[in-house]
Amino acid sequence: MASYSDIPDVKYEYLDHTADVQLHSWGADLKESFEQCATAMFGYMTTNYDTVEMTETQEIEAEGDDMQSLLFHFLDEWLFMFSADPFFIPRIVEITDFDVENFRIKSKGYGEPFVVGKHPQGTEVKAITYSNMQIHDNEQHDVFVIIDI
Amino acid sequence: MASYSDIPDVKYEYLDHTADVQLHSWGADLKESFEQCATAMFGYMTTNYDTVEMTETQEIEAEGDDMQSLLFHFLDEWLFMFSADPFFIPRIVEITDFDVENFRIKSKGYGEPFVVGKHPQGTEVKAITYSNMQIHDNEQHDVFVIIDI
Repeated sequence: MASYSDIPDVKYEYLDHTADVQLHSWGADLKESFEQCATAMFGYMTTNYDTVEMTETQEIEAEGDDMQSLLFHFLDEWLFMFSADPFFIPRIVEITDFDVENFRIKSKGYGEPFVVGKHPQGTEVKAITYSNMQIHDNEQHDVFVIIDI
Repeated sequence: MASYSDIPDVKYEYLDHTADVQLHSWGADLKESFEQCATAMFGYMTTNYDTVEMTETQEIEAEGDDMQSLLFHFLDEWLFMFSADPFFIPRIVEITDFDVENFRIKSKGYGEPFVVGKHPQGTEVKAITYSNMQIHDNEQHDVFVIIDI
């Protein structure tokens, strides 16, 4: 039988760990589905979303050439608000102006800066993707977005 | 300012979490690179590979139509040995017969059944893939395999 003295040197490494998760959100209308989608993204970043207090607000604006790019930029602007100063995580995301003719959104978030220790870290969201993005706006209002984590 | 009574109902879910990692192994010859690649795969399944004792042996045979499918089946046979009875995790994988003309491998593993509690769980390897598989057999002997986790 082999013994531990026979264990070979390690001649391997692990590269390029990639992962993604699909967000699915819905609502009474498409606006609410978009708001819920942003909330879903932020809910992935902490294992206890309820630790986020709503002591501050931040606003973003996004525009696109169509609904898909509008959704992309809406999420991407919020992600940037989290990833760079002020490192803000909203507990509620509200769309104050949802202009689907000109593909523009104005949005307000209620939350606070993300603080390690106060907010249990979830999984870092690295990027929004267009991969298999779906926006359904019929009797139901559903959004599907794959994010890189 | 918004208050917690304003927090909307959750209308989202997380779907289809997928992930992969690329194994890169090398050796003095291609045979060693293959052995190291199998070890790399099992090393991903526990956070402390040194907890695996070599009290038993298991053997597998694999064949392919070319080197890529040979590598695939070699890893896949070992993965099956882990995923089903006898749930065996080898600490050393030895290739006892490396027939690159007929694309056949005989291989022996030294290890024991995987036991939760004894072996700290790493990440489950769900499948071997052919995605961007690379086998370099020149001055250097390198293998790259992407596995689904």
